[in-house]
Amino acid sequence: MGLIVQKYGGSSVADAAGLKRVANRIVAAKRDGNQVVVVVSAMGDTTDELIDLAEQITPIPQGRELDMLLTAGERISMALLAMAINNLGHEALSFTGSQAGVITTSAHGRARIIDVTPGRIKEALDGGAIAIVAGFQGISQDTKDVTTLGRGGSDTTAVALAAALDADVCEIYTDVDGVFSADPRVVPAARKLKTVTYDEMLELAASGAKVLHLRCVEYARRYNLPIHVRSSFTTNEGTWVVKDHPEGGSMEQAIISGIAHDKSEAKITIVGVPDRTGVAARIFQAIADADINIDMIVQNVSAAATGLTDISFTLPKAEGAEATAILQKLQGEVGFASIQYDDQIGKLSLVGAGMRSHPGVTATFFGALSDAGVNIEMISTSEIRISIICRETDVERGAKAAHTAFALDADQSEAVVYGGTGR
Amino acid sequence: MGLIVQKYGGSSVADAAGLKRVANRIVAAKRDGNQVVVVVSAMGDTTDELIDLAEQITPIPQGRELDMLLTAGERISMALLAMAINNLGHEALSFTGSQAGVITTSAHGRARIIDVTPGRIKEALDGGAIAIVAGFQGISQDTKDVTTLGRGGSDTTAVALAAALDADVCEIYTDVDGVFSADPRVVPAARKLKTVTYDEMLELAASGAKVLHLRCVEYARRYNLPIHVRSSFTTNEGTWVVKDHPEGGSMEQAIISGIAHDKSEAKITIVGVPDRTGVAARIFQAIADADINIDMIVQNVSAAATGLTDISFTLPKAEGAEATAILQKLQGEVGFASIQYDDQIGKLSLVGAGMRSHPGVTATFFGALSDAGVNIEMISTSEIRISIICRETDVERGAKAAHTAFALDADQSEAVVYGGTGR
Repeated sequence: MGLIVQKYGGSSVADAAGLKRVANRIVAAKRDGNQVVVVVSAMGDTTDELIDLAEQITPIPQGRELDMLLTAGERISMALLAMAINNLGHEALSFTGSQAGVITTSAHGRARIIDVTPGRIKEALDGGAIAIVAGFQGISQDTKDVTTLGRGGSDTTAVALAAALDADVCEIYTDVDGVFSADPRVVPAARKLKTVTYDEMLELAASGAKVLHLRCVEYARRYNLPIHVRSSFTTNEGTWVVKDHPEGGSMEQAIISGIAHDKSEAKITIVGVPDRTGVAARIFQAIADADINIDMIVQNVSAAATGLTDISFTLPKAEGAEATAILQKLQGEVGFASIQYDDQIGKLSLVGAGMRSHPGVTATFFGALSDAGVNIEMISTSEIRISIICRETDVERGAKAAHTAFALDADQSEAVVYGGTGR
Repeated sequence: MGLIVQKYGGSSVADAAGLKRVANRIVAAKRDGNQVVVVVSAMGDTTDELIDLAEQITPIPQGRELDMLLTAGERISMALLAMAINNLGHEALSFTGSQAGVITTSAHGRARIIDVTPGRIKEALDGGAIAIVAGFQGISQDTKDVTTLGRGGSDTTAVALAAALDADVCEIYTDVDGVFSADPRVVPAARKLKTVTYDEMLELAASGAKVLHLRCVEYARRYNLPIHVRSSFTTNEGTWVVKDHPEGGSMEQAIISGIAHDKSEAKITIVGVPDRTGVAARIFQAIADADINIDMIVQNVSAAATGLTDISFTLPKAEGAEATAILQKLQGEVGFASIQYDDQIGKLSLVGAGMRSHPGVTATFFGALSDAGVNIEMISTSEIRISIICRETDVERGAKAAHTAFALDADQSEAVVYGGTGR
């Protein structure tokens, strides 16, 4: 007997048949003696259809009204899901984000959860009912307006609610079997991971893996809440996202858990920047003021003769034009030579907690890339991640080569221990 | 400078073009110097589509969940309407029934408004914004659950909100020009009424006229709030629903304001009922216990020789089968001879405040019906209404004949005063 929070995405509840299938799954968990809370997204393409409607009205919908509009999506799916469960003879009650006590900031379209006060959910559970909660939405603390959490927000709702309810597990149901060692569309030999740590999952998510949203993993790590990522179409075990890999697994555990790739970034190089204190700060402050997120930054050592250096950074392609315009305005003030813009780049990231205690990972990675004919243009590392920028066309070849080099391929032993020298 | 509450139905906001047209109308009212509150229904067929979805899930959706589902409809239309107004350069904020303070009973699907506490609406108006409010929905006082008010509920929302805000007028926008002296599809000579009293409108609504919902008119009468029923497709004056017809109009005012018809009823006759105290009460209590609404009741004088009488009553066709079954169960206990069921009847009602002071209305009405070959099967009257039951196939002929007899036809003078003897 435990308390389970389950989250179902839009593809799992795309139509009446999907809703009924999911209802059966939920009832099975309840029959097993658990208290069950379900977080549900809008059905299939509902959110996109609502956005289309808004675009027919105005090119610049107000955040408050767009959030009011979009939250109709989960209202529909959660009410229908509650009906489907009731139809199976189990009581289910649906709750909006506001009713479930999901209190957020007032940043419409990208609100952050401040607090969760699930009094009505507890009441429903105590009364023996299954609680169905709208994902993706909340109510702002200041204005009492309806808010949405942005893409992937339903995962965050589920984890936040699970933490507030002190749930035993948060199950994230999706249309894949779990978290893979690489994107199977890019690396066919990719295999499902049994466990991945919060830190690894955060690095994977930040590096382009789409399976879980960054904020959801951050939330789970803060409350040490186990997440089970699994398919809503099978009963297979999925991937557990937990604090540490299981004990005794240090020898068996692969050093690299996963390889992520990202083709959504562009690179900007500012050529001939005067190497003076405060110049880089001035440039990146201007970028930050425009709310543009930059990823990797590389600054070369300046040539002694000229006192000039080059600064390169990566950022989402969608923000490339704006960033370029901002930099052009700065050219007179800062006095750099020119700006180069390159949107044909790709990023490859190796992530693994084992990296901490195993030297030589970088050498193996770079060796594999070299053998595959992939040229490295930029490098960035964290304690458990190595990322490189290469040509966009080289990403898949590089990912496959690295996957094989670190013995991650599904037909290789899962217990290969990498040993090498230097990192 | 006044405070106007406008209500737009689903056909007025069926698509993006409709929403933009309505937005222009709302902004025009604001530009005229008014504070404007808008109550809006779900777009076009949205509500029916959501009901279809529910029926794909279960034949018996729970009231609570069905209300949660259906209220998504106004959420979509109100957010889009707010965007359309914002796009015209005027601030608009949308509010759910709950946010607008529409407090109801907890009878899902047919909740009644208990109170309206429009604090957030007043705040929006004071801040210079146009307030858009979801029609048809509220929040239950006891359970804090989302409720709906039933068919026509948006009209009631508008009038209740107008009363709570002490508005100068409640404008109900629809797809016809106003309230007509008869249904123009049945009586082509029907003409638009300039004014109709609350009492007349109540009788017309109760007699089958569809233009305004009964509860909405009751609400307006209680608060003496003028309603202006008009078309959202033209700028023509519509029909004013007010306490009294304008002064000085007593001589000019037609005695009959309108003719309503209703083909939705059936007639049940209980033959050979023992004429004992309590028998009729026993029969109608059983019908009432099943929540079946009966309309007209006629009991013949019992034949002295037998001590038996016949009782006839009318009720919605949809409830005919259930009522018949209930009566059959009573047959042994009450000891009547048989039950006759007739669903081929129609009802014609004449309504007019002028009836109070003008005798002879009944004679003229019955004379016109007789001349048109319409046989009267049952009769029921109130102070300002005469209703008769006839064959369903005779309804249109009877309506036309009465319309002409009372000088209501569009090509007749509006000032004809009827004189006659006896009623």
